[in-house]
Amino acid sequence: MKGITKLQVGEQVDQFLLIKQATKGVTTVGKPFMSLILQDRSGDIEAKLWDTNEEHETTYRAEAIVRVGGEIHDYRGKNQLRIKQIRLARGDEGIQISDLLPSATTPKEELFEELTQFFFEIKNPNISRITRHLIKKHQDRLLVFPAASKNHHDYASGLIDHVVSMLRLSKAICELYPTLNKDLMYSGIILHDIGKVVELTGPVGTAYTVEGNLLGHISIMVNEIGQAATELKIEGEEVMLLQHLVLSHHGKEEWGSPKKPMIQEAEMIHYIDNIDAKMNMLTRALDKTKPGEFTERLFPLDNRSFYKPTF
Amino acid sequence: MKGITKLQVGEQVDQFLLIKQATKGVTTVGKPFMSLILQDRSGDIEAKLWDTNEEHETTYRAEAIVRVGGEIHDYRGKNQLRIKQIRLARGDEGIQISDLLPSATTPKEELFEELTQFFFEIKNPNISRITRHLIKKHQDRLLVFPAASKNHHDYASGLIDHVVSMLRLSKAICELYPTLNKDLMYSGIILHDIGKVVELTGPVGTAYTVEGNLLGHISIMVNEIGQAATELKIEGEEVMLLQHLVLSHHGKEEWGSPKKPMIQEAEMIHYIDNIDAKMNMLTRALDKTKPGEFTERLFPLDNRSFYKPTF
Amino acid sequence: MKGITKLQVGEQVDQFLLIKQATKGVTTVGKPFMSLILQDRSGDIEAKLWDTNEEHETTYRAEAIVRVGGEIHDYRGKNQLRIKQIRLARGDEGIQISDLLPSATTPKEELFEELTQFFFEIKNPNISRITRHLIKKHQDRLLVFPAASKNHHDYASGLIDHVVSMLRLSKAICELYPTLNKDLMYSGIILHDIGKVVELTGPVGTAYTVEGNLLGHISIMVNEIGQAATELKIEGEEVMLLQHLVLSHHGKEEWGSPKKPMIQEAEMIHYIDNIDAKMNMLTRALDKTKPGEFTERLFPLDNRSFYKPTF
Amino acid sequence: MKGITKLQVGEQVDQFLLIKQATKGVTTVGKPFMSLILQDRSGDIEAKLWDTNEEHETTYRAEAIVRVGGEIHDYRGKNQLRIKQIRLARGDEGIQISDLLPSATTPKEELFEELTQFFFEIKNPNISRITRHLIKKHQDRLLVFPAASKNHHDYASGLIDHVVSMLRLSKAICELYPTLNKDLMYSGIILHDIGKVVELTGPVGTAYTVEGNLLGHISIMVNEIGQAATELKIEGEEVMLLQHLVLSHHGKEEWGSPKKPMIQEAEMIHYIDNIDAKMNMLTRALDKTKPGEFTERLFPLDNRSFYKPTF
Amino acid sequence: MKGITKLQVGEQVDQFLLIKQATKGVTTVGKPFMSLILQDRSGDIEAKLWDTNEEHETTYRAEAIVRVGGEIHDYRGKNQLRIKQIRLARGDEGIQISDLLPSATTPKEELFEELTQFFFEIKNPNISRITRHLIKKHQDRLLVFPAASKNHHDYASGLIDHVVSMLRLSKAICELYPTLNKDLMYSGIILHDIGKVVELTGPVGTAYTVEGNLLGHISIMVNEIGQAATELKIEGEEVMLLQHLVLSHHGKEEWGSPKKPMIQEAEMIHYIDNIDAKMNMLTRALDKTKPGEFTERLFPLDNRSFYKPTF
Amino acid sequence: MKGITKLQVGEQVDQFLLIKQATKGVTTVGKPFMSLILQDRSGDIEAKLWDTNEEHETTYRAEAIVRVGGEIHDYRGKNQLRIKQIRLARGDEGIQISDLLPSATTPKEELFEELTQFFFEIKNPNISRITRHLIKKHQDRLLVFPAASKNHHDYASGLIDHVVSMLRLSKAICELYPTLNKDLMYSGIILHDIGKVVELTGPVGTAYTVEGNLLGHISIMVNEIGQAATELKIEGEEVMLLQHLVLSHHGKEEWGSPKKPMIQEAEMIHYIDNIDAKMNMLTRALDKTKPGEFTERLFPLDNRSFYKPTF
Repeated sequence: MKGITKLQVGEQVDQFLLIKQATKGVTTVGKPFMSLILQDRSGDIEAKLWDTNEEHETTYRAEAIVRVGGEIHDYRGKNQLRIKQIRLARGDEGIQISDLLPSATTPKEELFEELTQFFFEIKNPNISRITRHLIKKHQDRLLVFPAASKNHHDYASGLIDHVVSMLRLSKAICELYPTLNKDLMYSGIILHDIGKVVELTGPVGTAYTVEGNLLGHISIMVNEIGQAATELKIEGEEVMLLQHLVLSHHGKEEWGSPKKPMIQEAEMIHYIDNIDAKMNMLTRALDKTKPGEFTERLFPLDNRSFYKPTF
Repeated sequence: MKGITKLQVGEQVDQFLLIKQATKGVTTVGKPFMSLILQDRSGDIEAKLWDTNEEHETTYRAEAIVRVGGEIHDYRGKNQLRIKQIRLARGDEGIQISDLLPSATTPKEELFEELTQFFFEIKNPNISRITRHLIKKHQDRLLVFPAASKNHHDYASGLIDHVVSMLRLSKAICELYPTLNKDLMYSGIILHDIGKVVELTGPVGTAYTVEGNLLGHISIMVNEIGQAATELKIEGEEVMLLQHLVLSHHGKEEWGSPKKPMIQEAEMIHYIDNIDAKMNMLTRALDKTKPGEFTERLFPLDNRSFYKPTF
Repeated sequence: MKGITKLQVGEQVDQFLLIKQATKGVTTVGKPFMSLILQDRSGDIEAKLWDTNEEHETTYRAEAIVRVGGEIHDYRGKNQLRIKQIRLARGDEGIQISDLLPSATTPKEELFEELTQFFFEIKNPNISRITRHLIKKHQDRLLVFPAASKNHHDYASGLIDHVVSMLRLSKAICELYPTLNKDLMYSGIILHDIGKVVELTGPVGTAYTVEGNLLGHISIMVNEIGQAATELKIEGEEVMLLQHLVLSHHGKEEWGSPKKPMIQEAEMIHYIDNIDAKMNMLTRALDKTKPGEFTERLFPLDNRSFYKPTF
Repeated sequence: MKGITKLQVGEQVDQFLLIKQATKGVTTVGKPFMSLILQDRSGDIEAKLWDTNEEHETTYRAEAIVRVGGEIHDYRGKNQLRIKQIRLARGDEGIQISDLLPSATTPKEELFEELTQFFFEIKNPNISRITRHLIKKHQDRLLVFPAASKNHHDYASGLIDHVVSMLRLSKAICELYPTLNKDLMYSGIILHDIGKVVELTGPVGTAYTVEGNLLGHISIMVNEIGQAATELKIEGEEVMLLQHLVLSHHGKEEWGSPKKPMIQEAEMIHYIDNIDAKMNMLTRALDKTKPGEFTERLFPLDNRSFYKPTF
Repeated sequence: MKGITKLQVGEQVDQFLLIKQATKGVTTVGKPFMSLILQDRSGDIEAKLWDTNEEHETTYRAEAIVRVGGEIHDYRGKNQLRIKQIRLARGDEGIQISDLLPSATTPKEELFEELTQFFFEIKNPNISRITRHLIKKHQDRLLVFPAASKNHHDYASGLIDHVVSMLRLSKAICELYPTLNKDLMYSGIILHDIGKVVELTGPVGTAYTVEGNLLGHISIMVNEIGQAATELKIEGEEVMLLQHLVLSHHGKEEWGSPKKPMIQEAEMIHYIDNIDAKMNMLTRALDKTKPGEFTERLFPLDNRSFYKPTF
Repeated sequence: MKGITKLQVGEQVDQFLLIKQATKGVTTVGKPFMSLILQDRSGDIEAKLWDTNEEHETTYRAEAIVRVGGEIHDYRGKNQLRIKQIRLARGDEGIQISDLLPSATTPKEELFEELTQFFFEIKNPNISRITRHLIKKHQDRLLVFPAASKNHHDYASGLIDHVVSMLRLSKAICELYPTLNKDLMYSGIILHDIGKVVELTGPVGTAYTVEGNLLGHISIMVNEIGQAATELKIEGEEVMLLQHLVLSHHGKEEWGSPKKPMIQEAEMIHYIDNIDAKMNMLTRALDKTKPGEFTERLFPLDNRSFYKPTF
């Protein structure tokens, strides 16, 4: 079955979808309706449910799985789903939320296996032990969390997808610039965003936790490195440097790093993080664009549209 | 005896002074000399030592106490000390470095006693226990460290002087704006800058430590609050809020706070910190200025000169 | 009777309300309707009036008092008033506009009495005479004007409420920082915003006057101080300093002060003004927020949401 | 006699010069000397006086006229005057300070005559009366003051030179854009900078007065327009508009205008002021530059160097 | 017949109009409609067409000429056209698109004649030949293109209107500042924006071409000057200076000029360009505003509203 | 023989050096001297020549090769060379300027061979032909020019060193992000900075040419691509895209790119350029720094000092 975002205007729909977001509304003549955002692995689509009542509002909430019949139509240049039938999925139909979440193309187990291979290349015992301690502590969430609530790698297992992609790039770069310390590079990349598993709520309807809002993933992880070192009775410059790598990976104070990078590995991790995030957004945007045309505006890329060449 | 900064041009000098900084130079005709910055409790003054040799350079280093004879003269509108005799102080002359450091006017013991009174007003047991733990841990350094290497409260015991001044102001403000939580206010103020005792090297020749440069006093203290909570087995929102108070007290990302204030007590601590720092600089600058004239330019106050009214 | 903003969804309404704003609209099928903003002392609420005609448009205008029957319902997460009956209030029903305006909690007469007490503490005769002259000139409007058209102290008598609150805070601060000149502080605070009575139109449907737009309350008041001094035949530095205090109270050129503060009292008045304005907004926003949740975004506080702790 | 800035390295000097600035110094071997800035109508040059004593320091002060013998030499690529003889000018030698000040090329009386012609074209009686009142009040200083202490029109009569040049340009512009009100344009230009006669100390050793620092020429003039209107019993929109023209002529809050231009004449006066100031600097800088080379860096023009074409 | 923007609410419409833009919509109850922007020489107006079907959507597209019957009504304070009848214009009715486009008031042939007169004043043969070559190459489009897709001179022949207006202003300025090189001024103004004929699509439904987006009119024209010089076998500083004039006319890097102005003529062309663009917007906005009121907000003028005086 | 920058304080010098810069000075007692910057392949050092006369000044100019005897001493913490003997090198001593210029470690012929290999991987004939044309046109200068006058790759053959390093990195990146077009990447990198061979004067005493100042290497190269396409009769999107790659490689308008990157290859070339430039500076600065210490401040890296870890 084709993904919901791949259908053309006029095509019929009859499939299971996950309610990502549900909002009540009132038409200008005072009649209640609901706006739903429905998703499957391919992405999401907007849908309207007219003439709703209170029962609809309690039934069709975020995170519910529904079976929907309807048709794709065009609304102001964007596809929308006109709902004709809708009902909740039954337990015996065997549909899982994870079946309907967009997620990394590579299975998460393979990604974790690849991450582990990079981890084994870390030689410094202090760095290696702290890194292992924190991977193990957060392993379950690391495998399924997105890297962000929107923009880049904002899908199930997006976090590990992003980390592994950065590790691959850092390997090539370490060969070209051999003064870089591979142990710091690999450990810094593995740890830099793990704080996201505390900052965010999870892969479905991703939002910020209170702790995420008040402390942020950077401070959360800097704390955890300190606590890990205490627990493992590790002292030495390595602890401070790993904390610095996490602290500074946004590159500038105004982007949320209380210190700018002050070792070369920190500077490079900041570059690699940026490249991988931007390429993830660009690739997805260009994938939806025809040759000779421009992508939609990409807010985190200074709101630019990118051109797709014709050759 | 008058302080070294209170002397007029032409007055004779014969007193013990602390070398704050010593730099070698070569005149334009190739002769070696030394530039010294000499200080006592009243502040510091520049001095030149001509026709020096290697022995001078090894003898007259920073942190040495010297007995100096000479005269004040004017150099480009600023007082300078022309050295006629100089020698190292002898151990039996009984001069301590602390006798020659500028420091808070109120004795540090009295300041600590006042801080303790404020501490006792904290009712919430979690907040109280974490605060006591960290005061005790850093008590020795808290009593003698400056609050900064330059600009405001940059003298021995400047840190506790600043903290107590902020506590007094916060007390008045809590009465005027009763929705503020006094426990969070007092604890937040006591803890907000203690990280400086790790960030800075101490009251003499104050500089940044490597950890101070790479992590900064904010992250250092956020970590310590986390570690204290673990050690004291304290859980609950209080821990996160104290961390947030420290994290956000610079007010903005570009000023080194990875999160802006997101509770009202954090917002207010940021204001109080700012007022007390600025008033410390302003009062000292105006103290050196005659009515009807302008202070020197104050860099952290947007490089402004302030006018001292004639009435 | 409960204030209009205190009612829950589903509660019935039958009370007098003031029309703050009335806008015509057309539904997407071409039928006319009106959007009304209705207010009482507790604040305001949006309401829709369907199927309106020209008579409705001329009857239900801003500043009219109406008797409304209806019910509270939820529209996109905000309360709205569904109007069932509406009519103009009759003169014999004795409802005044001032009965329906949000206003300072303390009666304006008490606030003025408190302001007068502070005024009596001014010792310098030149400062005292200019201040009295301008208080008397604008006394009527000073008692009823808001301090702004939106954001902080944007209610009847908000201006004097703000001024008195600043005076209280400045009293505490003058005790802690005794180099501050109390005469300049009190007079500067009393005068700093009086220009608002020319800049704004008044407490109902507050907007900017042409003079407010083209000159602004700062320049208006600087002029008035000059004119008062001429009239009272006062010469001397005090006139210039009072003008400077008003001129610089926004703190920076980009915030509308043609000169930054250049005396310490000016710097401090800028801080106090800021604190009182921000706390007014914060207190009101937190008052509407449940513990464990965040306030709505507050635009003048960098668009931040603030968290309300659970303890 | 050639102006002091027109002499080549190696040429002999024997002429009267004005001391613009005098600073004491000490050589690196402790010998006193003085740095003088000496000027005549052509501009200024640096000079050193070696082995000075206290008598030199009291004799050769700023604003003294001296007779100097010496030679031009090159110091780090800039011309410097090597003093061989120096003495104070005697009263009977008949040299006036004004003989040695750089000043506008056109005599100030001619400039004032031209300004008067523009003034007579103002038709609106309110605008005309206020303008005449203020021209008369400040006429003496308007004729001799510079427009600034440095950068543009920073010479005797520079203010009126600048105003007349702007009037000429505005005449051409009013013909091309006929919706502009000529009365507002001419009066606004005449008044916009007159506050400088209070802001600055005068044409010799130009500095800021206290009032200039604390209020600035913009607020000073806005006040004077208000006072003039009161005195002349003029009411009406013209007063407010003239005040707005002065208030807004720096164009932006961060450049010292508390309000941005809000009438078209204000916008245009801001442009004309900018063009005339920039062209004054550019013309003088290019005048000193050879074809095929770049001018020195011009700080108020974003620190740019300008190229002088070879054709 | 009155222009469509000059009609009052309630007036009947029956005339030919050009569809500038056509957008599909769906009402909140799911019924399709179209939003049209219709224009004639006086400007444009919004209109709604209810209960549309696919045939409407294919018939009433941008650039179609239609005959419309209907009535003006008020929608949220702006005039809107309620369509009662609509049909396509027939070929035999003889209406051209150019009859319905807003355009320069002066006929394009007269503007071109005036431009030619300025061109003839250029003396330098290299500058003259390059300028003529490029005028001839782009003459057809230069006569009809707008200077922009919105904001200033955004109408048919707006480009040449803008260029000629700048030439007139530059003539007056060259007389007042005689160091300016008239050849560079006139040629620079003529060439500075011709790249717009490649950057934009044309006078109807003006948009950016792909080349316009990726290279921009500045780089396009700098290239063309280079190519013209090669073709005409012209060498010498003139080529580089003309390229620099075009390159720098936006004044700053952040406004799209890769180099700031570095010759005085470049600086002045930047000022003249700015003045003419701003006055074009201001004049049109004030023309629609009553005395004593403010214009709508003008985005390119810092989003300001301008006041129209009452006298 | 050890390079001049590798010598310790106290070591004797007797070797050929190139005068990079020569400046006249006068001591505070009026005696002339010269400041020289002398260099060999290892870098440069400052030296003073006392009691100079006019003959010295004409003999010891920039680009002269001299034989110098002397000793290294310490001046304010930096090494300086005390000259004892100095004379011009004689023609028969066979020393070339290129023997004394710092340059790329890899021989320029090898770098060019590697660049050629990358070039051969370009498949698109239009891209390939334009690229070859421009490589050939500038081949001589491309082999010896630096990439900048200071900061990164500021040595002989620095330009080709930088380009080849970027090509290596882009190869690895194209493998990790396969949607990137290799032809555009390789050609864009080869061409992006070739304009430097016109913008700069050459490898000795590198400065900006007039054309470099007024047009800049970006516009120069965009022109050359256009001219090459005309000459080779190539049309098609490739020309525009290559121009866009060069145009946008500084990433932002304020950094001198008139257009931001708008194709993904442009975005990536900007990242790669940045990484390679920054790593070049960082590696050289860290090379001069001991473990446990900080580098000097690096201006183009936000003036940061970088820490060199101890492990």
